[in-house]
Amino acid sequence: MHNDVRAISWENGELVLLDQTKIPHEEIYIHCQDYRMVADAICRMVVRGAPAIGVAAAFGVVLGAKEIVSKKQDLQTGLELVFKELAATRPTAFNLFWALENMKKVVNQDWSTPEECINVLEKEAIRLYLDDIDTNLRIGENGAKLLEEEMTIMTICNAGSLATVAYGTALSVIRTAVRQGKKISVVACETRPLLQGARLTTWELMRDRIPVGLITDNMAGYLMQKGMIQAVITGADRVAANGDVVNKIGTYTLAVLAKEHGIPFYVAAPFSTVDLSLTKGEEIPIEERG
Amino acid sequence: MHNDVRAISWENGELVLLDQTKIPHEEIYIHCQDYRMVADAICRMVVRGAPAIGVAAAFGVVLGAKEIVSKKQDLQTGLELVFKELAATRPTAFNLFWALENMKKVVNQDWSTPEECINVLEKEAIRLYLDDIDTNLRIGENGAKLLEEEMTIMTICNAGSLATVAYGTALSVIRTAVRQGKKISVVACETRPLLQGARLTTWELMRDRIPVGLITDNMAGYLMQKGMIQAVITGADRVAANGDVVNKIGTYTLAVLAKEHGIPFYVAAPFSTVDLSLTKGEEIPIEERG
Repeated sequence: MHNDVRAISWENGELVLLDQTKIPHEEIYIHCQDYRMVADAICRMVVRGAPAIGVAAAFGVVLGAKEIVSKKQDLQTGLELVFKELAATRPTAFNLFWALENMKKVVNQDWSTPEECINVLEKEAIRLYLDDIDTNLRIGENGAKLLEEEMTIMTICNAGSLATVAYGTALSVIRTAVRQGKKISVVACETRPLLQGARLTTWELMRDRIPVGLITDNMAGYLMQKGMIQAVITGADRVAANGDVVNKIGTYTLAVLAKEHGIPFYVAAPFSTVDLSLTKGEEIPIEERG
Repeated sequence: MHNDVRAISWENGELVLLDQTKIPHEEIYIHCQDYRMVADAICRMVVRGAPAIGVAAAFGVVLGAKEIVSKKQDLQTGLELVFKELAATRPTAFNLFWALENMKKVVNQDWSTPEECINVLEKEAIRLYLDDIDTNLRIGENGAKLLEEEMTIMTICNAGSLATVAYGTALSVIRTAVRQGKKISVVACETRPLLQGARLTTWELMRDRIPVGLITDNMAGYLMQKGMIQAVITGADRVAANGDVVNKIGTYTLAVLAKEHGIPFYVAAPFSTVDLSLTKGEEIPIEERG
């Protein structure tokens, strides 16, 4: 099974993003040539999903650094604004802040020339990019062990290739299990208000020929009660030190329903989503869109 | 508080229905001059809500009877098709079958002339119409006792004036409590896929100046977990003899969530929604729309 979705790529010094606000109707790619375009793309959810946001922001820093140096400004001073603007794009997904911290560490080293710093910043962003692919493959390997020969898995929002660099978190588990020959089908929750389940998850899985059904969010309880769901797998925006998970609205409802029906509920996320500075979930800032 | 919504009325021998598929954008009334128009209106959800469907079908029988007599056909034979077509419009709401049974009892009496039968059929339909108003007022009186001085009530779909002849079932409880001076606010679930909560319940309550917030269905658990909901009240399409309730998809999810959070869950319905022939909920036919 080859997944050819490229939601995010770094091509000739540009960050190329598949515009997810247009999927499934149009497949349009946006070429970000400066960090403001990246910040705007994250704000507008052109690129979305905690891991993908982190990687996109890292490349945003690279674009910002190049612009500062081309204007002969001081790199460290100039990057302060870049970090600030990129960090202000989305409040909840921890991978954003984690990726920016990684980039800041590079900036704060001693550099003989700004060009040398930019070179390493680009390498660091590419490393985060490749690490995400590797991490998702390993999430898939680990998670697939939890799935049996025949299961119908419920998921919410999109935690697939579109939400990461490739493979996805929740969907990587499903993809790996299918690759192993297990007969897995998926029930995607519509995910109101922005319909990431309906628009993105079904689109991805249909491309992979993995059987997927689409339900309105309020059907989840009925399907569980009828014994039609064997596991729930979701991604995460942020995980607190105690294991509390924050994810797309509706995830908590699915967790309560799964508990009531004795259905296992799994969260598939990389370590970059874990915020050890927060002791519990209540401390995680929740994004509310007007 | 005066509720002036007239979702259903009997005017000069026509059944006048507010087209609920157009609310809140347009307020269009459909004048049904024959029973096929009534059947079509029930099918297309121009008129909806278990009690309103029942009353509409009763007037459909009156229109059918008039047409048969005007064509000099045998009333009892002709009405068989009318009853069959009206009964085939919606499978779940029990009030439909209950109302048709009431009308059949009239037909099956001995009549000296068909005109006399039609006259009593019309009186019976009007009785069902007026009874629904009375029943809803009493549902309101009884239910309001359960509500305290300040509460935020969650509801799904529309169980208001639009779903009945007047006042509603779940919303009658809320309206009565507000009239008694209680400070009640409502959280309406959007109610995918047809958005009866978003389109109809908010429309009704805003006309009554009762505070109402609209949420996507998948927000229900989050709000309950945050302590923002003090009770859930819904209507019902059918109630089995053991008390099992069938209602709009998503109602079961709310019931599970309410149980998890220790929030009282009330079903407001008239006795005409109770189907004593069914021992439990699994036997109730569920409508699925393609």
